[in-house]
Amino acid sequence: MSSKLTLLGLFAVAVLFHVGLAQQAGSCPGRQRYGQCQCQIQKLQALRPSQRYESEGGLIEVWLQNNQQLQCAGVTLVRQTIRRNSFNFPGYNNAPKLTYVPPRGRGVHSVVIPGCPETYQSTEQFQGQREQGEQARTIRADEHQKIRPIRQGDVVANPTGHVHWFYNDGEEQLVLIHLIDTGSNSNQLDQQFRKFYLGGNPQSEREHGQHQQGPYQGEEQTYYQQRFESNNIFRGIDDEILQEVLGVRRETVEKVKGRGDVRGHMVQARQGLQLVRPSRMEEEEYRHGGSSSYGNGFEETICTARMRENIGNPARADVYNPEAGYIRTVNRMNLPILNYLQLSAERGVLYRNAIYAPHYNLNAHTIIYVTRGSARVQVIGNYRQPVYDGQLSEGQVLVVPQNFALTKQAGQGGFEWVSFKTDANAMINSLAGKTSAFRALPVDMLASMYQISRQEAENLKYNRGQEVMIFAPSSTSLGRALP
Amino acid sequence: MSSKLTLLGLFAVAVLFHVGLAQQAGSCPGRQRYGQCQCQIQKLQALRPSQRYESEGGLIEVWLQNNQQLQCAGVTLVRQTIRRNSFNFPGYNNAPKLTYVPPRGRGVHSVVIPGCPETYQSTEQFQGQREQGEQARTIRADEHQKIRPIRQGDVVANPTGHVHWFYNDGEEQLVLIHLIDTGSNSNQLDQQFRKFYLGGNPQSEREHGQHQQGPYQGEEQTYYQQRFESNNIFRGIDDEILQEVLGVRRETVEKVKGRGDVRGHMVQARQGLQLVRPSRMEEEEYRHGGSSSYGNGFEETICTARMRENIGNPARADVYNPEAGYIRTVNRMNLPILNYLQLSAERGVLYRNAIYAPHYNLNAHTIIYVTRGSARVQVIGNYRQPVYDGQLSEGQVLVVPQNFALTKQAGQGGFEWVSFKTDANAMINSLAGKTSAFRALPVDMLASMYQISRQEAENLKYNRGQEVMIFAPSSTSLGRALP
Amino acid sequence: MSSKLTLLGLFAVAVLFHVGLAQQAGSCPGRQRYGQCQCQIQKLQALRPSQRYESEGGLIEVWLQNNQQLQCAGVTLVRQTIRRNSFNFPGYNNAPKLTYVPPRGRGVHSVVIPGCPETYQSTEQFQGQREQGEQARTIRADEHQKIRPIRQGDVVANPTGHVHWFYNDGEEQLVLIHLIDTGSNSNQLDQQFRKFYLGGNPQSEREHGQHQQGPYQGEEQTYYQQRFESNNIFRGIDDEILQEVLGVRRETVEKVKGRGDVRGHMVQARQGLQLVRPSRMEEEEYRHGGSSSYGNGFEETICTARMRENIGNPARADVYNPEAGYIRTVNRMNLPILNYLQLSAERGVLYRNAIYAPHYNLNAHTIIYVTRGSARVQVIGNYRQPVYDGQLSEGQVLVVPQNFALTKQAGQGGFEWVSFKTDANAMINSLAGKTSAFRALPVDMLASMYQISRQEAENLKYNRGQEVMIFAPSSTSLGRALP
Repeated sequence: MSSKLTLLGLFAVAVLFHVGLAQQAGSCPGRQRYGQCQCQIQKLQALRPSQRYESEGGLIEVWLQNNQQLQCAGVTLVRQTIRRNSFNFPGYNNAPKLTYVPPRGRGVHSVVIPGCPETYQSTEQFQGQREQGEQARTIRADEHQKIRPIRQGDVVANPTGHVHWFYNDGEEQLVLIHLIDTGSNSNQLDQQFRKFYLGGNPQSEREHGQHQQGPYQGEEQTYYQQRFESNNIFRGIDDEILQEVLGVRRETVEKVKGRGDVRGHMVQARQGLQLVRPSRMEEEEYRHGGSSSYGNGFEETICTARMRENIGNPARADVYNPEAGYIRTVNRMNLPILNYLQLSAERGVLYRNAIYAPHYNLNAHTIIYVTRGSARVQVIGNYRQPVYDGQLSEGQVLVVPQNFALTKQAGQGGFEWVSFKTDANAMINSLAGKTSAFRALPVDMLASMYQISRQEAENLKYNRGQEVMIFAPSSTSLGRALP
Repeated sequence: MSSKLTLLGLFAVAVLFHVGLAQQAGSCPGRQRYGQCQCQIQKLQALRPSQRYESEGGLIEVWLQNNQQLQCAGVTLVRQTIRRNSFNFPGYNNAPKLTYVPPRGRGVHSVVIPGCPETYQSTEQFQGQREQGEQARTIRADEHQKIRPIRQGDVVANPTGHVHWFYNDGEEQLVLIHLIDTGSNSNQLDQQFRKFYLGGNPQSEREHGQHQQGPYQGEEQTYYQQRFESNNIFRGIDDEILQEVLGVRRETVEKVKGRGDVRGHMVQARQGLQLVRPSRMEEEEYRHGGSSSYGNGFEETICTARMRENIGNPARADVYNPEAGYIRTVNRMNLPILNYLQLSAERGVLYRNAIYAPHYNLNAHTIIYVTRGSARVQVIGNYRQPVYDGQLSEGQVLVVPQNFALTKQAGQGGFEWVSFKTDANAMINSLAGKTSAFRALPVDMLASMYQISRQEAENLKYNRGQEVMIFAPSSTSLGRALP
Repeated sequence: MSSKLTLLGLFAVAVLFHVGLAQQAGSCPGRQRYGQCQCQIQKLQALRPSQRYESEGGLIEVWLQNNQQLQCAGVTLVRQTIRRNSFNFPGYNNAPKLTYVPPRGRGVHSVVIPGCPETYQSTEQFQGQREQGEQARTIRADEHQKIRPIRQGDVVANPTGHVHWFYNDGEEQLVLIHLIDTGSNSNQLDQQFRKFYLGGNPQSEREHGQHQQGPYQGEEQTYYQQRFESNNIFRGIDDEILQEVLGVRRETVEKVKGRGDVRGHMVQARQGLQLVRPSRMEEEEYRHGGSSSYGNGFEETICTARMRENIGNPARADVYNPEAGYIRTVNRMNLPILNYLQLSAERGVLYRNAIYAPHYNLNAHTIIYVTRGSARVQVIGNYRQPVYDGQLSEGQVLVVPQNFALTKQAGQGGFEWVSFKTDANAMINSLAGKTSAFRALPVDMLASMYQISRQEAENLKYNRGQEVMIFAPSSTSLGRALP
């Protein structure tokens, strides 16, 4: 790779020889800690993934980290589809990762915490049942660290540098949406999203890039930047040392190093994996019982820390309006491990034509991933014109910078999304409704600000004062929205 | 704004075509988190504001954030003058702001905290008195969040992203000195100081820039960088959505969006604002009683957090010398909200010819604003020559980088200042007097260090050992300083 | 220094005129907070110091901070050799410093904490004994802040901006290895390592640079960047002001300012320094008693904070294997002041041919300094080839980026090192042995991952399952390693 230039060098060259490009490249919201990006924010765009990597066990699609929007927010987004009975090689990242499970499939998740004991143990005679309908198989003696069932609506935490894996033990595909915060303080490497695997041969994956996507035509010279870098960490270790410290045969070392493995980073376990775990029935009982294992945030030790919180269940919504929809958040208050990740998330559902009132995040960027439906979305920054004004549809991603106002109106088919936020305690300020900033201001001030009567100022303050953040459409707007 | 280049691009270009400029541009102390600025520190300068924006309700003067000194320290300074009965449009910033009220005027301040209740309530019959001598006016029913009276010597905290406003209800102009810490971790946007208003038409303001000010001649190409960006956040939101979520008439939406408003971002309330608040008499009683509402930092909830601390009263000085002057600091110990802002401040008064002994800040930059008088100031860094050696007068600003030594000798008219510091617990090490580092060193070491007798080393350690930080001038120096 | 360009400017120039250089310059692991360094990591190298500064009292050797490896990790390394009866001028840095005392010499250390009392006090009549064999000398009345004896294996903390000094009161040279973390959040200046002295004339030091060292030939234009900047902080202060605030004679001011001093920044105290301190005998008794003054981290006040922890004693090893060696760490758990420095350290000893199993740091960079012997070291990153594969010998330094795997096999003479880590609680994940990630994974998953039998997967998990991190060489490897 002697032809690599640093991004900075490239950029200097680009400025000199492609000033036109540099002039377009202003659409870049950003965390200031990314010094190399001045991130002029004039235009956002809805993003689709631009790369696909296929492997035996599934598919990953990557939203380029060096798309300027994502780069300036300091994040990478990945959608992973795991086939039945497949799992991804255990590995770790150079940044914290928050994973959302959209309504599809189920599986298990495990984070390896260094120094913690193997608390899931079985003896030789244990009889496990994998699935109703399958034949009972004997689980032989094994012990490993805790594993967690996951299902739709779960948010799963993966701290920086911790080995973790996902396994699809369900009947259909398991889809995962990953947000990797390469801008985190816990990442002391560069902004590149780096993935280190404990096995396999990631370079063997077939890549299907769509490198001309988006407005960044003419950036072929940065093509190699567009890969996220991954490697089998055993790959470069000397064979003899590895053979010695693992205490295994030479052939096994070859296997561990993934030589000749062409399956990619997700692989299939033909018979399914035999795991030590409570039976599916036990798990389901707990779930229907519905009690949630809220920690108090203090009693938890790192070895038993909760890594998962479900935000998909409308019965536990934080904001609910039967005409408009519901919202549920996960943050450091209900999932304390997020203090380490410095990330949080919001799950929202808007019914047909309903409106999420204008609001902004005080202290975080928002990365919206649309799980279903579509909406008209507006984002307003420091300019007279919105920096985004258009449709946002299933599978698309939009970055909303900190402090920029956001409003959404669901389309005919409703609108469902998950938003990742780059702070463990992201705070919202609403610009309309019961929790609106207007409510906090004196009536007389509103009248004077807007040069309106005191009566009209009271209207402004109280007319929609019963609704919180999400609004049912009035008959007028219903009429307007219908064709 | 298609002609915008990113700062980085510009810089690269500047280096190529204006190497002379780049060579001069070395006078840049800085926080390292600002990667794009290597901030070679060779020469500081006393700064006056370079931009004025006038509006109906007053005037703001801005110290350019992209002046290299301020940019490298990661701060913007703003002096705001609010006319009688005027207020600024409620709004929020992308960074924490600490405000000092120099000895002029009085007013009220409010921070809107999302989710907190409207705790200032009145019923229809309430009779309020605004001012002695004015006629009593009926305050009609209203409720809003807490408002705080402010007066000279107050330091007021405005956390990132929180809507806040100031209102001048006094008899004369209200002057405010704002320090905005765009380098704060809570700002995930770029370093640009961005102001988001809930109303008005900020772009209508008449700007009176003095763009050729300072040593940065020939930087016209960065002119557009020199504006701080502000906008009415409702401006870009779709009219119909806004009408619906606010539940008001179309005309009111127009007013909220500030169309055609030419008053700027500060406006006058001809009759004065009717606010729900304790009477001025009640407030004054409390003040003369003199008890201060020190929180313990734990009992406080965010909704009742103290946002204000007075550091103007010599009766509460931290350091006092009747011959030399006094110093009072506000930090996270006496104003816990500063833990969120990561800022602190120092108010100082030096009498005629008195000296603030050489000292440095261990962990913060210092931004000095002179409120009265003048002094001879020296700042010493890593070079043989001082990086600053000259007069500093009323209305001027000087940035003193972390670890750089600072000394001040007041002129004939004394010297008063406020210093903002970029840490919630800024620590000082004094190089002379009772708290001097010399006192902590063995006499024998001093003798050996400076190749002086043990007796002279004891003199060094103890001769001025009764004085703390501020020194009355000796007769010699008095003689010297007098004309 | 009008010919200074900022590093960034230089870099842009370098890219344009020395693209070949830029292409080589990719070997740069880095903390992202250093925006200007994209730090492509392809090749690491073992580093020797490239600069020597001699002074009367000893010698310092500096590992260039702008070597790309060190720059990207945000650290500077300094080896200081202090002669008998010599000390360095008290001074402070713009960044936290962690010091290790390799097996050579002994001395004392003191950190001046502003506002803390002088707690080491003597009265006139006190009789001190410096060393057995020397004649008793009278210590005259003195008082100063706490001083701490240091000896081999000590790790000593020096917080940002705090004045501190070292004094060699032993019989032989005292060697100190300093790690300065210029990338720390507590450094708000630029990345340059800056040293501020309270005396002397640092610029008088004879510099013996070896500027052509390493792969960065052709970088003469950055030569001036390669100095670390130091100054006598009193140098630039006006003579009259200094005379007044110190209350001493004009001649003493000259001495304090170091005019004409050619001794450099370390000086000799011909008669030895007379310090107020417990006798050497009292200190030794405590040591052989062996009790360690572990604080609970809460009771400590800043004035009595422990600044020192010994990690040289095998009797207190954290990991011990009589066939392989031992490891001892110091972090915020056993030295709470490290919470302020955000640094930790590891001391390791590998016996002949023993292996430190492959492992990586989850959350920190590692800077290895070899104190004795040599080893074969491999570092594996995101590439097929190791980024380092070679010998590492006494006196050399290697930077291992966060998340990169590291393995060491000691040579014939064994291998001893100290590793500095850029987090107060650096966490290791081992890839082999009892604490290996393999142990945490299900056997069935290992079989499926590596396409091996369940039996072989169990071998992988348990064969070397009794050993923790460090492995004695098997007879095979012994045979291999022997000539």
